[in-house]
Amino acid sequence: MRTSQYILATLKEVPSDAEIISHQLMLRAGMIRRLASGLYTWLPSGLRVLRKVEAIVRDEMEKAGAIEMLMPVIQPADLWIESGRWEQFGPELLRIKDRHNREFALGPTHEEVITEFVRKEVSSYKQLPLNLFQIQTKVRDEVRPRFGVMRAREFTMKDAYSFHLSDECLANTYAIMHQAYCNVFERIGLEYRPVIADTGSIGGSVSHEFHVLAESGEDAIAFSSGSDYAANIEKAEAVMPSEPRPAATKELNTFATPDAKTIEDLKTLHGVKPHRCVKTLIVYGAPDEEGKRGLVALVVRGDHELNELKAEKHPLCDSPLEFAKDHDIIAAIGAAPGSLGPVGLSIPVIVDRSASILADFVAGANKDGEHYSGINFDRDVANYEIADLRNVVEGDVSPCGNGTLSIKRGIEVGHIFQLGTKYSDAMKAGVLNETGKNQIMTMGCYGIGVSRIVAAAIEQNFDAKGIVWPKAIAPFQIAIVPMNMHKSHRIPAVAERIYQELKAAGIEVLFDDRKERPGVMFNDMELIGIPHTLVIGERNLDDNCVEYKSRSGENAMYNLDTVVAELIAKIRG
Amino acid sequence: MRTSQYILATLKEVPSDAEIISHQLMLRAGMIRRLASGLYTWLPSGLRVLRKVEAIVRDEMEKAGAIEMLMPVIQPADLWIESGRWEQFGPELLRIKDRHNREFALGPTHEEVITEFVRKEVSSYKQLPLNLFQIQTKVRDEVRPRFGVMRAREFTMKDAYSFHLSDECLANTYAIMHQAYCNVFERIGLEYRPVIADTGSIGGSVSHEFHVLAESGEDAIAFSSGSDYAANIEKAEAVMPSEPRPAATKELNTFATPDAKTIEDLKTLHGVKPHRCVKTLIVYGAPDEEGKRGLVALVVRGDHELNELKAEKHPLCDSPLEFAKDHDIIAAIGAAPGSLGPVGLSIPVIVDRSASILADFVAGANKDGEHYSGINFDRDVANYEIADLRNVVEGDVSPCGNGTLSIKRGIEVGHIFQLGTKYSDAMKAGVLNETGKNQIMTMGCYGIGVSRIVAAAIEQNFDAKGIVWPKAIAPFQIAIVPMNMHKSHRIPAVAERIYQELKAAGIEVLFDDRKERPGVMFNDMELIGIPHTLVIGERNLDDNCVEYKSRSGENAMYNLDTVVAELIAKIRG
Repeated sequence: MRTSQYILATLKEVPSDAEIISHQLMLRAGMIRRLASGLYTWLPSGLRVLRKVEAIVRDEMEKAGAIEMLMPVIQPADLWIESGRWEQFGPELLRIKDRHNREFALGPTHEEVITEFVRKEVSSYKQLPLNLFQIQTKVRDEVRPRFGVMRAREFTMKDAYSFHLSDECLANTYAIMHQAYCNVFERIGLEYRPVIADTGSIGGSVSHEFHVLAESGEDAIAFSSGSDYAANIEKAEAVMPSEPRPAATKELNTFATPDAKTIEDLKTLHGVKPHRCVKTLIVYGAPDEEGKRGLVALVVRGDHELNELKAEKHPLCDSPLEFAKDHDIIAAIGAAPGSLGPVGLSIPVIVDRSASILADFVAGANKDGEHYSGINFDRDVANYEIADLRNVVEGDVSPCGNGTLSIKRGIEVGHIFQLGTKYSDAMKAGVLNETGKNQIMTMGCYGIGVSRIVAAAIEQNFDAKGIVWPKAIAPFQIAIVPMNMHKSHRIPAVAERIYQELKAAGIEVLFDDRKERPGVMFNDMELIGIPHTLVIGERNLDDNCVEYKSRSGENAMYNLDTVVAELIAKIRG
Repeated sequence: MRTSQYILATLKEVPSDAEIISHQLMLRAGMIRRLASGLYTWLPSGLRVLRKVEAIVRDEMEKAGAIEMLMPVIQPADLWIESGRWEQFGPELLRIKDRHNREFALGPTHEEVITEFVRKEVSSYKQLPLNLFQIQTKVRDEVRPRFGVMRAREFTMKDAYSFHLSDECLANTYAIMHQAYCNVFERIGLEYRPVIADTGSIGGSVSHEFHVLAESGEDAIAFSSGSDYAANIEKAEAVMPSEPRPAATKELNTFATPDAKTIEDLKTLHGVKPHRCVKTLIVYGAPDEEGKRGLVALVVRGDHELNELKAEKHPLCDSPLEFAKDHDIIAAIGAAPGSLGPVGLSIPVIVDRSASILADFVAGANKDGEHYSGINFDRDVANYEIADLRNVVEGDVSPCGNGTLSIKRGIEVGHIFQLGTKYSDAMKAGVLNETGKNQIMTMGCYGIGVSRIVAAAIEQNFDAKGIVWPKAIAPFQIAIVPMNMHKSHRIPAVAERIYQELKAAGIEVLFDDRKERPGVMFNDMELIGIPHTLVIGERNLDDNCVEYKSRSGENAMYNLDTVVAELIAKIRG
C-alpha cells in the first residue's frame, strides 16, 4: 500500500476527550474515528488490525471444533420475553420497534437466538455435542460509553454456544474452549490470565474471564504467589483466618463520638485503628412470602471493603443488593448510619470472616453520637452468622491454600461460562436421549471482545512515540521510508523495487511515497507502530546500503543486494 | 469437515412459505433459517458461500484501488437531517432512539456517514481521488420482506464511495469500478448484464445496475439485438417512431359506450383495437409558486403502459407522480375515468411519442358513457406536447440506433452512481483546490448486494435435485460419500486417507461420515450442490477403484492410487 493512495489520518495532538492511552493512540495513529458517543468508524489501518484479530480467533475456534454461522443483529422481543431477560436486562438492551410497531432488540449477545435455532434444528442426542460460533457486530447501549472501542456501544464480538446432553460433556468442551482462548491470546502476543469469574447476568455456575494485564484495566484481579490461582476480585474468596479469636479482656463501654461518622473519623478523632473496629452496613433482606423485605446488618472490619456480589448471594439478602434507606434504618434501629454496630440488634446480623475473629473491638452503639469499645462476639453480640463478605486485599492468604494474594489490574477480553440449563429450561430446548425420552440440553457460552482486544493490545504495547504492535496483529509488517524521494533519481527506483519484491513475497508493506520531510514520515510510522522500517537515503545508497530499524529499537545496515531476502527472513522468523 | 460434527440441516419438504426457487433451496439445503420476517440466520454452509462472495468482492475492490474501512451500523439522525434524507427516505429507514432518547437510524446505506468522515479528514485536493469501501450488515425495514435473503430486512452489502475534484476524475473512477463489478460477476460465474439505470432516491446523473439474468427477477431489462445496449425498463427510452403520422381520413364522431371503462372493454364490446385507441391518465401537475397543483393529462396508446418514472421527470408533472383523485377529475373535466380523452381538454396534455403518430383513433369523449372515433391530432386536439411516457416493449426500435429491443427478467445485484455533488453540497464537503480555494467535492457511490448474490446465483444454477453452485462459491469443493461405512473395514480407512490428503492440499472437503443410507447421502450432497463427489464402495474397492460424479452429471472411475492427484487437478483446473 502506498501512503499517497491511502488514508493515514495520523494526528499530532492528543485528542482532549480520550482518557486512556489506547484511545488516544487509536485516534492519533488513524485507527478509528468517533462518529457519535460510543460509535466508531474503523479506518483502514485499524480495520487491518481488527481483521487479524478476527482471523486468529476464527482459526482457533475452528481448531476447537466450533462451527461458524451468522445470526441476525435484530432479534425478536418474543425470545427475550421467553427467556425472562426482556425484563431483566435493563437499558443496555437497545430496544427498537419496526414499521409495524413490533418490538425487537439489537443483540448484545445471542443465547436466546441460538437456543431458538437449536431447539428447532436438533432433535436427537446423536447430533450432540454441538459448538456454534459467530463473529459479529454487537450492540449494547452503555450508560456511559468511554475509552474508545474499549467500551463502545457498537463492537465486534466472537460469541460461541455449545449444547450437550450431560454436564461432563459440557465440562469437556469448556476445557477445550478454555485452551483455545489461551491459544488466541498467546498467538496475538499478549500478557493475559484466565481468572475465576462471577457469572453475572449471563448466568450459570463455572465461569472464567480472560484478562489482558494493564494498569488501565477496569477490573481488579487477585493472583496467588504460590499457584496458578487467579480470580476477579468480585469472586476471589477471602478465606476464614486460621488463627482463633482471642479471649475477651475488656468490658463493653460506651464513649461519645458526636463528630465521628466514618472509620476515618474514628481513627483521627479517637485514635481507633481501622482493623480494630467494624463497620455495619444495613441492607434489605430477601423478601418473605408476602413480598415484604426486612433489614439485614452486614459487619466487616473497618479496613475492609464490602463485596456486594458476595453479599447479594447470601440467602438472607435481597438480590440485587440494595442499601437500606436512612428512614428505614432509623425506624428499625433508632440510630442513623455513622453510629451503627452489631450490639443488641433485633435484625439478622452477618459478620465477615475476618471481622468474626476480632476481640475487644469498637463499633457504633446504635445511638446517635455514641460508640462502644470492648465489644466481644457471643458475649455482646448474641445472634450472628459468619460469611465471606469482603473484597480480598493484597497479602491475604490465597484460597488455593498456597501463598498469598497480590492484586493487579486487568482488561476483560474474554468470558466463558458453563451455563447449564438456564436458557434451555426457560425455552424448553430438549432432545430425545438414548432412552427415547425428551431431555433438556445443558449449555456453555464463550465470548471474546474482538474489537476490545485491539485496544487492550495497545494498553500493553506502547511507548512515548506511539503504538508498538505485537507482530501478529500489526496493520502492516514493514514500512518503507524513502528520504526526500522527490529530489532523487536513485531513491524512487530502489524503493519501488524493494516494495514490489516484498509485496510479491506476500509481505504487507506500507510504502511512504508522500512528499513529506523524513521526520514527519518516521514519526507517523512509529506512531502507527509498524514493527519494521526500511529507510532509503542517498548517503547509504552511495555505500550500496539501506538502513533498517525495528519498532522496538534495533538498528542495522543491509546490503542492497541481499536486503529483501534478509527482511523476509526477519519478518517471517 | 465431517458431517457428524457439522450442521447439514437439509430438509426433504419444500417449505410452504418460500415462493421462489432460491428461497426454497436455501432453506432445503441448510443455507439459511428464518428468525423473523426478513431476518435470516446464515447456517454454516450458507455462510461459507457468503464469505466466498465477500472475498471475491473484496479482492476486486482492492484491485480497483478502493480502501476498506468499517463504519457503524447505527447512524446519528443529525447527519440524515443535514442531507435531507431523514424526511425523504420513508419508513424503509429503521429509526431508533437510544436510552437518552436521541434519534438514530440503522444504516441502509452510508452516504451521510462517509461524507461526514471525508469532510473532517480530507482538506486538500492532494488527498484526492479517494475510494473507500466496506462490507457490512445493512438494515432496511422493507414493507414486505420476501424471497428469503433476496429482499431481507438485514443483509450484507459492499458499499463504496469515491471523492473527486472534477467530474472527469469521477468518470474515470466510475469506469474502473464498472469494470471491477464485471470482474466480480465473471469470477463468481454468473450470467449478468450491466444496464443503464435510474438513480432513484440515491440521486446523481449517470447510473448502471448490474443484473443477474433469471426468470424470477423483479426487474425487466431491455436488450438491443444490435448492440451492447441494455437498460432497466424504468429507464429504457422509447424512441420517436420514424414513420410520419398518416393524414386524417375520418370525421370526429361520438359513440355510446355505457359499459366500456377500459381498453379491454372497448376491444371486447366495440371491436376497437388497443393500438388504435389511447388511454388518458390524469395526474397532478407540478405545484405553482403558491404550492397549488393543477391537473395534467398523459396520453399513451391503448396497448402501451405508462412509465411513471418518465412521467414524473416531466417538468409539468409533480414528483413523485400522483394519480388525480376521481372528484378532482370530475370537477375539472366533467367526466370520470373510463370516458376520458384528449379532445377539448383545458388542462395541459402530454402525448407519448408512439401515440402521437396515430390518426383516426379512438378515445373517451370526456362525457360519461361516450367515446370519440376518428380523432386526429392538431385538428381535434389543439394544444399538446409530445414526450417519451411509456415502457418499451419487445420489438421496439433500440434507442442505440441498432436493432430492436427484447425484454428479459433480471435480479439487481449491483448499482453504481455518479452522484455528483448531491451529498457534498448539502453537507458542505469541500477541499482546498490547486488555487487555494474551497471547492465542493464530486462523489460516486457503488453498491453490491453480497447476500443477494448468493440467492441470485441459485436462481441461475439449479436443477430438480437442488443447487448447482458455480465452482467459485460452492460451500465445499468436494464431498466424500463412503457407502455403508459402518459395515466395512476397508471403506473407513480409504475414505479417511483420501479426506486427509485432500485437506492437506487445501481442498475444502465435506466427508459424509453419518450412519445414513447411500441414497440419503447422495440426495443431501446434490441438494447442497457440491461440485464434485467421490463415492467409496466395497465393489469398486475390489477393483482398486473409486467412483467420481460431478454435480453437472459427469461420471468417472479413478484408480485408488492416483485418485487424490487427479481430483486435485480437476478441482483446481
